[in-house]
Amino acid sequence: MKWWGWGAEDVSFSYEGKPDLAPFIERVLGLDVRRPGISPIAFEDLEIRATALPAELRALLEAAVGAEQVSTDDRDRLVHGRGKSLTDLIRQRRGDLRRLPDVVVRPGAEDEVAAVVSAALEEDAVVIPFGGGSSISGSLEAEADEPRPVISIDMGRLNRVLSVDPASQLARVQAGVFGPDLERQLNAQGWTCGHFPDSFTHSTLGGWIATRSSGMQSDRYGDVAELTRGLRVVTPSGVLVVRPVPSTSTGPSVREMVLGSEGRLGVITEATIHVRRVPAERKILGYLFPTWAAGLAAMRDLAASEASPSITRVSDARETAFSFALRDAPTPLERVKSKALQTFLRRRGWDLEAMCLSLIGYEGSARHVATQRKLSERIVKRHGGLRIGASPGRLYDQKKFDTPYIRDFLLDRGAPADVSETSAPWSELPTVYDNVMAAGHGAFHRLGVPGYLMSHLSHSYHSGACLYFTFALNPPDERDALEDYGVVKRAIQQAFVDSGATLSHHHAVGTEHAQWLEEDITAPGVAMLRGLFQGTDPGANLNPGKIVAADSLSEAWETISGGRSS
Amino acid sequence: MKWWGWGAEDVSFSYEGKPDLAPFIERVLGLDVRRPGISPIAFEDLEIRATALPAELRALLEAAVGAEQVSTDDRDRLVHGRGKSLTDLIRQRRGDLRRLPDVVVRPGAEDEVAAVVSAALEEDAVVIPFGGGSSISGSLEAEADEPRPVISIDMGRLNRVLSVDPASQLARVQAGVFGPDLERQLNAQGWTCGHFPDSFTHSTLGGWIATRSSGMQSDRYGDVAELTRGLRVVTPSGVLVVRPVPSTSTGPSVREMVLGSEGRLGVITEATIHVRRVPAERKILGYLFPTWAAGLAAMRDLAASEASPSITRVSDARETAFSFALRDAPTPLERVKSKALQTFLRRRGWDLEAMCLSLIGYEGSARHVATQRKLSERIVKRHGGLRIGASPGRLYDQKKFDTPYIRDFLLDRGAPADVSETSAPWSELPTVYDNVMAAGHGAFHRLGVPGYLMSHLSHSYHSGACLYFTFALNPPDERDALEDYGVVKRAIQQAFVDSGATLSHHHAVGTEHAQWLEEDITAPGVAMLRGLFQGTDPGANLNPGKIVAADSLSEAWETISGGRSS
Repeated sequence: MKWWGWGAEDVSFSYEGKPDLAPFIERVLGLDVRRPGISPIAFEDLEIRATALPAELRALLEAAVGAEQVSTDDRDRLVHGRGKSLTDLIRQRRGDLRRLPDVVVRPGAEDEVAAVVSAALEEDAVVIPFGGGSSISGSLEAEADEPRPVISIDMGRLNRVLSVDPASQLARVQAGVFGPDLERQLNAQGWTCGHFPDSFTHSTLGGWIATRSSGMQSDRYGDVAELTRGLRVVTPSGVLVVRPVPSTSTGPSVREMVLGSEGRLGVITEATIHVRRVPAERKILGYLFPTWAAGLAAMRDLAASEASPSITRVSDARETAFSFALRDAPTPLERVKSKALQTFLRRRGWDLEAMCLSLIGYEGSARHVATQRKLSERIVKRHGGLRIGASPGRLYDQKKFDTPYIRDFLLDRGAPADVSETSAPWSELPTVYDNVMAAGHGAFHRLGVPGYLMSHLSHSYHSGACLYFTFALNPPDERDALEDYGVVKRAIQQAFVDSGATLSHHHAVGTEHAQWLEEDITAPGVAMLRGLFQGTDPGANLNPGKIVAADSLSEAWETISGGRSS
Repeated sequence: MKWWGWGAEDVSFSYEGKPDLAPFIERVLGLDVRRPGISPIAFEDLEIRATALPAELRALLEAAVGAEQVSTDDRDRLVHGRGKSLTDLIRQRRGDLRRLPDVVVRPGAEDEVAAVVSAALEEDAVVIPFGGGSSISGSLEAEADEPRPVISIDMGRLNRVLSVDPASQLARVQAGVFGPDLERQLNAQGWTCGHFPDSFTHSTLGGWIATRSSGMQSDRYGDVAELTRGLRVVTPSGVLVVRPVPSTSTGPSVREMVLGSEGRLGVITEATIHVRRVPAERKILGYLFPTWAAGLAAMRDLAASEASPSITRVSDARETAFSFALRDAPTPLERVKSKALQTFLRRRGWDLEAMCLSLIGYEGSARHVATQRKLSERIVKRHGGLRIGASPGRLYDQKKFDTPYIRDFLLDRGAPADVSETSAPWSELPTVYDNVMAAGHGAFHRLGVPGYLMSHLSHSYHSGACLYFTFALNPPDERDALEDYGVVKRAIQQAFVDSGATLSHHHAVGTEHAQWLEEDITAPGVAMLRGLFQGTDPGANLNPGKIVAADSLSEAWETISGGRSS
């Protein structure tokens, strides 16, 4: 894993082979991506604070997991020091490392996790669970002024599917398994979990649970909160076991307390999750809508209908334009087809600048797929939509896990880019969208920097959906990119909560969203979380400062990001 | 409402017009229900402890809700003193009243609820929210030795549907509304909530939320935990507002903490709930399976299929026999048909003593109903099942809310009858069933009393379902019916948790199930609940002792029920 950017060392994004991309970025951000990029600080030039691991604690940890699984290696500590938020990436590139963990331990079994937690409590150290390290909300970094030893527990060795119960469609799985490895093990037995977040290749089951993750096919498979039934969690008072029952009435749901807990209640070691038979057929089809309003209305009507597609997604016109700009060089035939489509749409009176690309997915038996598609396309048609075939869906399916690499590509060129996502009831989505657009563009304008803000709807539910925003800006060299980025990010997040939407649909709170928590769930909600955390972890040894910000932490964020915009 | 039994004063159950019922009860319980019943103690003979409402508190309450909404009337206090569990009913009938509330208040608005809670905190009183008063888990009774003044907040005046958002299929509803009134208000606008628990006519939206209720059509509409999105709750630190977003990632779900909280976190005043258009068609069809195993397997296959029925229910042979015994006198034609069916089944090799009655419901457009039915009946057929038409479903639909009245009818004749329900993964259901049957019959045998124990499966999910047990026993007059009942009840509950199932699928914990909580959710789970409750309500003013038993409370239960059976 890159210590300064997203994903695998040998993978990076390039504009080459995408003839429309460089001109598009030049047009919307005034950025010439063909200029050579700026590299992050070299590893050798980093100032890495020496580990401060007390000998007693080291001895206990070595006894817990074995000496070879206790690492104080600098690169190890660096990689485990924080996640992959835009703020994280910029600070890494600058060599602004703050409070790295003193030690990385790699337990291979639940009792080893328990021994690590015991050691931490005994020696008053801090424990931060680490899955794929791809948090984009600041859930992995120790508090800047943490005086106690900090232990990062890397869960990667706990990576096995332990058993599948075919009658119950449940699998017992260790929490440290990465997405592709989980699917590989399940597929080998004819099963799938069906959870495919954008971070899929670099995130783990435990991480999904700890952040309330959602995957691209959540309309069919459910969010991770739905598909997680049983749990095993090492807590300060022993191993919490949540039985994998389908539904229960045992007071406030302890299962739902672990979901989204970001390490504050304990270390998730195992989960019993929904699995399904690999579907006989799986189709993702592309559609075009004449306007964003038509696309939104179609998605809403789909949710209220008897159709049950596996994916519902529609991009606004700006994201549609970006998607088209991302295409590989067309073959001559594709070029002709594309021209023909444009002519056809213009004749039908479409404004090609306003049109919106949509993806709808269908899964199951051939008959089910056919029925679902028929029901869905009737609704698409009612809203003026048009099917354009399988290629956009295929492209999306193949490329979606590569999207996060674009951030590094743009950062190499000085342009911060990031995402913010929310959810709201159907009736509020148009207003939320308009408010966020106004807030984002207002921020670009105030800063006087070129910026681009685009959005799509995905993850439909009975009563509403997720709106997912992506933005980029191109501040001049003499300005602080992190500061300018913070102004835009905060404007967008503030527009969410001011519009009655939530601070995040599936990216969690961490430290970076903590300042909006009270506006979202109100002060009594924060008091309930505080009671839960303090009651479970009275010594604040478990990933302190996340979700419910300690005062010092919100100050730290203010410092990092240059103060609140409102 | 009856102070000594279930439901409306003028409604009671009778064996008359049901020619098979009296012989059936005689056969299985050795009880002649034609003998005149024993009445409960007369209201005039009850010893009702005088209210101990301090003048300052009365003044504050009168200022909060108006003097006319503050009642210290004995009958009012009596009705609000506890719920309708079998233990409650027996103790009421005996005049064993324990700690009645000192005052019943009836707020008409959220700020009045807030003023009542403030007054309680100021004067260190106890607040117990009261919806329909039909709790069967002991969630409504003050602790026996509670020295502080006890206030019952009757939520019945907060009974309006405030608004419907058609685009989002959401309704804002006050928490005190009773089931029938909720449906009447929604139906008038073409909507339904679709939540129909057995207690429907005598329970409220707030009560459903506070106990994690489930309705007969939950397969389609979801449990109350699913259909409740937004919430307003008066807590000690102000009004908690949960935004009605479809899904969110804001740390451990505060929404899910309120669900099942039984008044321990505050008073629920309002919820924003899923609604759906009243379906064009609604069918509940009856089926017969040759065996319990075949019925269970069919329900499991339905859950894993592409069919999505609104109701899936199958009774074991014992409950099937009881259902047939409950029928009204057949017409001559019905008698002929019934004989013909029996002959037909015997010819096919069925053992009529083993056959199991099933109900499957379908809802939606005519086309959807037809498709769902076709898919479902293919599965039914694969498991040897047979459709027997619409009359069992119609009967169930009409009569299901009357079932709780049977308990009083049997208690009049000295026979306690009650229910216990659980849920487990599909693969475990046969074992759970067998273990519970063995435990229940073992208890009857140990006691040496005639008893009957029957069950059905209902509420199917991806990974499992609910098993609902009903039992009755006929202890001789010289024995303590409550004690004998407790032995059976505890044996069944213990078999649940010993078999990996949960202590309750939808009846909540209260005080009566609290002794199994730690075995179900483990000690760290109990610690988390304790932290949540103590952090939110440090003075323990909100319905103390429920869910997480204080030591004194579990002792009280031991005393009531004659000690733990294990």
